[in-house]
Amino acid sequence: MKQMNEYIALVEGALDKALGSTDEYQVLRAMAYSAEAGGKRIRPVLLLMFCRMLGGNVNKALPLACAVEMIHTYSLIHDDLPCMDNDDLRRGKPSCHKQFGEATALLAGDGLLTMAFSMIAGADLPADVRIGAVKVLSQRAGVFGMIGGQEMDLQNEEKGSSISAETLERTYALKTSALLQSACEMGALAGGGDEEAIEKAGEYAYHLGLAFQIVDDILDVTGDEKTLGKPIGSDEENGKATFVSLYGLKKARELASAHSDKALSALQYFSGSGELKTLTENLLFREN
Amino acid sequence: MKQMNEYIALVEGALDKALGSTDEYQVLRAMAYSAEAGGKRIRPVLLLMFCRMLGGNVNKALPLACAVEMIHTYSLIHDDLPCMDNDDLRRGKPSCHKQFGEATALLAGDGLLTMAFSMIAGADLPADVRIGAVKVLSQRAGVFGMIGGQEMDLQNEEKGSSISAETLERTYALKTSALLQSACEMGALAGGGDEEAIEKAGEYAYHLGLAFQIVDDILDVTGDEKTLGKPIGSDEENGKATFVSLYGLKKARELASAHSDKALSALQYFSGSGELKTLTENLLFREN
Repeated sequence: MKQMNEYIALVEGALDKALGSTDEYQVLRAMAYSAEAGGKRIRPVLLLMFCRMLGGNVNKALPLACAVEMIHTYSLIHDDLPCMDNDDLRRGKPSCHKQFGEATALLAGDGLLTMAFSMIAGADLPADVRIGAVKVLSQRAGVFGMIGGQEMDLQNEEKGSSISAETLERTYALKTSALLQSACEMGALAGGGDEEAIEKAGEYAYHLGLAFQIVDDILDVTGDEKTLGKPIGSDEENGKATFVSLYGLKKARELASAHSDKALSALQYFSGSGELKTLTENLLFREN
Repeated sequence: MKQMNEYIALVEGALDKALGSTDEYQVLRAMAYSAEAGGKRIRPVLLLMFCRMLGGNVNKALPLACAVEMIHTYSLIHDDLPCMDNDDLRRGKPSCHKQFGEATALLAGDGLLTMAFSMIAGADLPADVRIGAVKVLSQRAGVFGMIGGQEMDLQNEEKGSSISAETLERTYALKTSALLQSACEMGALAGGGDEEAIEKAGEYAYHLGLAFQIVDDILDVTGDEKTLGKPIGSDEENGKATFVSLYGLKKARELASAHSDKALSALQYFSGSGELKTLTENLLFREN
């Protein structure tokens, strides 16, 4: 995955540049702290890979890649707050509000969310491509996308294991697939893809997100604690509905496999999708 | 103020349409609850007045007007949260988190902030005008604008009355002027104004915001509780630095007057600024 590592380095360099310019405000330091905490950078890497595959200029698409990573990071900061999941740790480090206090963490999330759109607006791309990216990102990340998924997640927790499989699938689609879709769609846009290419990019990401979540549910039951790095069986303990609790392990595996196949088959629309195929397989056929 | 009332009605109609389409999610109801709670709608009205003054189409600028009001509303929802100002009431009604719970209020703020950019992206305006509006709004509302001002406000509270006049002016400029600037600048953009017109619009709003805040500080000392609708002397009681505590009443009045003059003089650049002049005078020469 030489290309992937190169893209991660590009994205992290650009994030540093956008967030590290001044330490005038504590809130800016909090934004940089969380954005630089790492993670797999899946979304910006997908964006750059789609752009490249369609013949676009990766450097020009870089601000869009930063934008989707900023949205992802803000959602983690707000998710970790005491009124949400109340997590003290994120990627082995104190979560943003543990490090900077709740008020600054709240503002840091707001700041990253807002800056995502500044990044797109300032990109060296045609105005119609930039406004297309603003539209895609704001809709996929908004109340009819990711935020709607977070809201459904809150409601599902109250209802425990009594929710329907349809509701769970919709929750996963909004909570996880939507932002992945924005990444792939913005990549296709920046690469000069036509409507059909953008649609195929979104279709790929939809199934990738679902497959990824279902694999997560399966690993929570079958995984090895050591490989996984977290206790198994936590979903059942929390009375949380999962694809395994709703369908059983066998059917959950079939569904994960069906969504993986659909993701890979959407990729076949594109020529030169080798790197993306490898990345997809690494994400889906995993043990942690 | 016939034009003003007409513009308020336009904005409220458009906000209803954007937020009232479905009650599928509780978070959408929370967004609508706060956006419909009213207030003076100063920012969208300013935007539409600037657009109209420059010969633009008010209906086409309406999504931009909604966007700035959504940003204002989200900032109030997040400001009211327990980790910030912990206010139970907003405009005489339970604040968003009192009505819907903290998690939903957090998401409702995020949802309005995100939707603001969807509104701009979907406007029936040329792509370069829309992307210009995204740039202006995201910068003015971001960490180098409004959010930076909120952060400075938090830091000032810790430092109490020991901050410098320069710091207080910068806090007011970011916390209050920045979003007003985005409103006037987006209005000028949508009206087809050139760079100089946009700059003048921003200059007007900068001084309007400062004058407004200084008048607030003065009324907290000299105001009549009945007219003002809130207890006077609260700033001094909270040990909060204000223009009055830093400069004394006489000098604060001179500064308010100087910024009012500068705001009105920036308006003189434009022909047909009569309505805006009246609005400005109403905002600044007030008793509550």
